[in-house]
Order: sequence, then C-alpha cells, then structure tokens
Amino acid sequence: MLQILAMSADPYLRSGCKSEANGGAVPRPMTGFVSGKVLASKRPDYIAGDLFGASLPFCTVQHITAEAAQKTLMWKLTGMVTEENISFGVGVLGMPGSTAYGGFLDVLRPEKDQTTKQETIWISGSCGAVGSIVGQIAKNVSGCKVIGSCGGPEKVALCMDKFGMDGAIDYKKCNDRAALAAALKEQAADGIDMYFDNVGGMHFEVAMESLRPHGRVAICGGISHYNEGERTADRIFPTDMIYGFKRIEGFMCMPWLSGKKGNFLKDMAGWVKEGKVSVEETFFDGVEAWPMAFQALFTGSKKGKVVVKIAA
Amino acid sequence: MLQILAMSADPYLRSGCKSEANGGAVPRPMTGFVSGKVLASKRPDYIAGDLFGASLPFCTVQHITAEAAQKTLMWKLTGMVTEENISFGVGVLGMPGSTAYGGFLDVLRPEKDQTTKQETIWISGSCGAVGSIVGQIAKNVSGCKVIGSCGGPEKVALCMDKFGMDGAIDYKKCNDRAALAAALKEQAADGIDMYFDNVGGMHFEVAMESLRPHGRVAICGGISHYNEGERTADRIFPTDMIYGFKRIEGFMCMPWLSGKKGNFLKDMAGWVKEGKVSVEETFFDGVEAWPMAFQALFTGSKKGKVVVKIAA
Repeated sequence: MLQILAMSADPYLRSGCKSEANGGAVPRPMTGFVSGKVLASKRPDYIAGDLFGASLPFCTVQHITAEAAQKTLMWKLTGMVTEENISFGVGVLGMPGSTAYGGFLDVLRPEKDQTTKQETIWISGSCGAVGSIVGQIAKNVSGCKVIGSCGGPEKVALCMDKFGMDGAIDYKKCNDRAALAAALKEQAADGIDMYFDNVGGMHFEVAMESLRPHGRVAICGGISHYNEGERTADRIFPTDMIYGFKRIEGFMCMPWLSGKKGNFLKDMAGWVKEGKVSVEETFFDGVEAWPMAFQALFTGSKKGKVVVKIAA
Repeated sequence: MLQILAMSADPYLRSGCKSEANGGAVPRPMTGFVSGKVLASKRPDYIAGDLFGASLPFCTVQHITAEAAQKTLMWKLTGMVTEENISFGVGVLGMPGSTAYGGFLDVLRPEKDQTTKQETIWISGSCGAVGSIVGQIAKNVSGCKVIGSCGGPEKVALCMDKFGMDGAIDYKKCNDRAALAAALKEQAADGIDMYFDNVGGMHFEVAMESLRPHGRVAICGGISHYNEGERTADRIFPTDMIYGFKRIEGFMCMPWLSGKKGNFLKDMAGWVKEGKVSVEETFFDGVEAWPMAFQALFTGSKKGKVVVKIAA
C-alpha cells in the first residue's frame, strides 16, 4: 500500500495528451512519476515507512499487486530524503535528475580533464528541472564553462546566482535565429563543445551552427514543438558534421534511473549533500492543481522542478 | 623521388574548387589522393621500388623533402598490391576504403552477433567507391542485411550481382521523399538499423524516418548538395531520436587511414584477398583526363572508384 506525497508534471506527458485527443482510450488514470511512502508491504525489499520514487498512476493512495510491482519502475529513497523533501524523488533524485546525469555524463561525455582544456556547454531550458541540474553537474562536478538559455531576466538571474552558470541568454529577447546566434557568440566567442537540447527549434539550429570540432549534441526534449498541430521540422546541414566528427544523440533516462548504467542515486544524493547541486522547485498543492502545474510548464511561469504536493 | 601511377577523383574536392571560384589562391597545384612507386629515397622506411598511397599534389613525378615527407600522409602498399593494381591505393586500400572501414565498424558499430539479431543497413551512393565497400563489409564480414541506393538499373544490377547486396533501390525512379520511403519500405518493411550517408537530401530524411530504435546514421558525404549555389538544409525532427536512443555522427577517414584507429590496411587487404571485398573501378587515362574523371562523379556516368591512370 503506497501513499503518494508528490506528483510530477513533466513536458513529455504532452504527447500522451495529444494521442488521447486523437482518439486514444479515455478516460484512464494518467501515469507519471511520483514519490511517496510505503504504508504496508509484503515485499521483502520494501517495508512500511520506506520512501520511494516510482512511475505509477496518479492516485493518492494505491495498492499494487506483487506482480504489478515487479513491472513497476520503483527506486528506494529511504535515507536520502525525508518526508519534508520527498519531492526530490520526482526531481533531482528521480526522472529529471537521472536524465541530466545520463545525458551529460554518458551522452555528451565531457573530457575528463577540464583543467587542461575547458569545454563549453550550452543548455536550453537551463532553468528547468533537467537543465538546471545539467548545468550544475557540468560546472561543479566536471568543471566546464556553462552557458544557459531561458526565458526572462528573473530566470537568467537564477541561472547565474543559484546554479552558478558562467552566462545565460534570455532567449525571449532574441527574435530570430540570427539574434540567438549572436547572443550565444557573445558568451562563447569560439563556439560550443556540447549542447544539451530541451527545446529544439531555433536553439537546436543555432547550436549546430556553433558546434566546434568534436562537438556533441544530446537530444533530451523539444518543448518548443510540443504544442504544434502540424509538426515543424528543424533545419540541419549534415555535411557540416563530417570534418569535425560531430555527433547528435537522442536519449531518455531509463538506463540510469533503473540503475543499469552508472551510479545515479548514489552520485546525485552525494552532490546534493555536498552542495554541488542545488534544487529549485515550484510547488502546487493537491491533486486538483495538477492541470495548472502542467500548464505552467508551457507558459514558462515556473522555475526548476514543478511538483504537485499531496497532503498525507 | 616519387612516380605517381594513379590519381584519385573524389567528390570532397568539390568544395575546394568552390573556394577557389570564390577567390582562393589560384593557380596552385591541386592536392589529393594518389598512389605510385618510390623511385629513390633517403628515408630508412622507404626504398626504391616501394609502392605507396599518399595525399600529395597532382604531379606525375615529384620530389619531396624529408621535412615535407614527415608532414605527408603516406602509407606503404608493398606486398599488398603490384603496379598492375596500384589503383587500389586510391580506392579500397586508400581513402575510400578506410572511410568505409571506419564509418561502418567504428561509427555505425554493427552488433557483433548478427546471427541472433540481424541488423539492416541502408547505403546511399551504394555503387560508389565508398558505398560499394561498406556494403560488402556489412554483408560478407559482419553478416548484415544490406540495402543499397543508386542511380539506374545497371548500377542496381551491380549492387546485387557483384557487391552481393540483398536489395538495391534505383533512386532515379523516386520522384520525391515519399516515393523513396516507399521503395525503402519494400526492401526493409520494419525499418533500418543503420544508414551510411553519402548523399544527404531526401535520402537522409527518409533514413531518419525509417530508423528503428537504437538506429545509427553515419554522415560521410552529401553529394546531392555539392553543386548547390545557396545551400539547402535537410529536415530533421530531433525529438524522434529520444525514445529510440538514435544517433547521427559525422566522420572522415583520417583516424583509420593513418593507422591511429583499427587495422585498416591489414584487414582490408585480407578481405580483398579472400574475395570478401570485390573492387569496381572506372578508369580514365592520363593527367589531362582528370577534369573528365571528376565530372563523372557528379553526372553518375561511372561505377565504383574513379581512377586516373598515369603511364609510368
């Protein structure tokens, strides 16, 4: 028996909503990332009082059979969080955290020794749940030069002051690709070595133009396209990738969140404890607020991880 | 003192011609890939009679200083070829061969065990110097299913009969992207695992649409764009790469041709000897014929490797 204490609102759920609008089976309970407390358990590996993160239906209290539990992605957070900060289970110690971790360390693969040759990473959605963590790992763990991109002066300040980035672009001041490219050039005159893409569109195109030899692009999301009716393609010149051995790679969190690759939970919990990764959250209260929380992802009226708190 | 016996005509030289047209320093000797025989040498590692491949100015007989020789990419072919088939030094045992070798084995990285789960590779320019070798390594060394794409029924027959491909598309019969996609679907109903891109344009776009989870695309060339004035972008939907962990990677031959990576010369010479890789060549005679040879790359009036033979 599980008590859900935090529900996640994540941009990737948008495509699920669309397929429902297009004739998928409705109504059905939405499924997504949650964190909470075990009330009772017959499993040997979870006991009452254990804290966890999981991918489950959005129900405040729920029972899952042993069979269902085996198929459920669930990870234990006991000892890493308390009920006070159980929201970390849907953020830095959950899907967004593992996305940042895997995408930066294993997809972008920063050079080990950044003191000899510092690499520059550009991150779109740099104030978001994933981008803010990518930036802090890149800066405080690996030692890269970090440039963000986000919407509005308040977010720019947050990127600089709280997340410690070396620069941040307010993309809302950039009317077109040329303006965004110019803004990036101001921050990174010689181009970028890595680009972590949360938004797609003109950010992706500018990143490709600005990519230095041996540059890498990790495709994590494309929120600038999520509300389109007819999909818009981005532009690419593949031959520009040849002489510089450039790479674009798509990925999602599963290998790292499931523990198949890397040491996500242990590493990330350690970095949070050491202050290398600070957490920003925007809270909404109660399951009724979930639709508002979800909308906030697309209006930009939020910072960091969007969490819907569920009272015990 | 070097005697050049074969000069290469390669599509990549097109961009050099353009920069000259745009005001680069002219006249200067063109530089490209050649193969030939050492007439005399003061170097301890080369003796008179040695056969070689190299990147050098297009001069039939030339002297290079010890200093220049140190900066020159040069590889020894003695024992692997004779003066009869010295043209292999600009083809299967030179730049195109090492491009095929590195691009397929180290960029596309086929699954080791193709008997359990056979992967499908699609190759554009599959009758060309590089594509024909990629196809044969994929088929006869790795055991993949190989689909080619080339222009005209004669080339399709060559792909099937000489290069042993499982299927080949005559792209000239495909008026648009949808037609090409349909032709590919006929050959690979469940999509492709790898795409080796020599041409860009609609081939690149169709490959991206047809790419299965964990699919990889190696960008080797984009000849469909080489004669454009204003460059045309290709279309891409980066978010389609996320859930399938898809990858696009650009590369050129240098790491493998220089011997830094892999065992190109040894492996490829072995495969040629064993009959796993057959060589197709289109010959032109004499240095005066080089411009015609070069044009043939773009008109499609050639098969396999274009070689300009230089009489001793």
